[in-house]
Amino acid sequence: MRVLGIDPGTLRTGLGILDAKGNVYELITCQTIEASPKLPIPERLKKIHQTLQDIIRLHSPDVLALENVFFGKDVRALVKIGEARACAMLAAAECGIPVVEYPPARIKQAISGNGRATKIQMQQMIKSLFRLKTPPPADAADALAVALCHVHSSNVRIPVG
Amino acid sequence: MRVLGIDPGTLRTGLGILDAKGNVYELITCQTIEASPKLPIPERLKKIHQTLQDIIRLHSPDVLALENVFFGKDVRALVKIGEARACAMLAAAECGIPVVEYPPARIKQAISGNGRATKIQMQQMIKSLFRLKTPPPADAADALAVALCHVHSSNVRIPVG
Repeated sequence: MRVLGIDPGTLRTGLGILDAKGNVYELITCQTIEASPKLPIPERLKKIHQTLQDIIRLHSPDVLALENVFFGKDVRALVKIGEARACAMLAAAECGIPVVEYPPARIKQAISGNGRATKIQMQQMIKSLFRLKTPPPADAADALAVALCHVHSSNVRIPVG
Repeated sequence: MRVLGIDPGTLRTGLGILDAKGNVYELITCQTIEASPKLPIPERLKKIHQTLQDIIRLHSPDVLALENVFFGKDVRALVKIGEARACAMLAAAECGIPVVEYPPARIKQAISGNGRATKIQMQQMIKSLFRLKTPPPADAADALAVALCHVHSSNVRIPVG
């Protein structure tokens, strides 16, 4: 199973793709899509959407996995999360792959065994799990964590909506 | 000036296009894009995005006008507003037209002279302004109101972001 995990944001969107065969995981790619704050939001969304479409077409993942909403962020931040999420969901729908989502605590629990793990602990766990020399950038690590969570949970798939 | 106004939502997205020449307004079209709640969200967003792209290509508006965020809605509703807004902003960016946005009170003030006008008052004002026999559906009326607000404010354009 090949999973594309996404950590969406209008300034930085993390993405990570992994292949899972039983308990063996292979990191295919991970990166951060940076959209300059100097660009108007529609142009930033266009860049995120276009890059994700290209990535999906290049790597043909079976599924796109997203973290679902954080509670307690301010109004503007929540709308921006929605805007970035839409770019990911649209790219998936246009390329014909399903979208699944998981709550933050479940992702942390799946990766580190602790639903309240810090960002640094998560980066370290991702580094260990994929035997990397250095931890990936925070947004890409979060994206790989969502993808791994989906692999661990793949018998209980939760479609968005 | 031809303006496309949008009232975005993941279930119903209102849209309205008007031509403005001085103080004369002509209604080109208004409609509601309905996306069944039975569809997964990515498919709903795809429908909204595709329909808006088609509308922009068909009618060639000069600008897309959006209401900006309502405060006080719940977390889930705010994220959904962001998701639907992104479909509109993406369609505009892909078709090369600018996006502008206005706060709800300014739109109501521009149309009815009252920043706290009700939905029904707004529908009646839109009916009168365009000399319609019946008021348009609420979402389409809201979309036309944003478009009209842009015409009234077009010397003070506010890019999103």
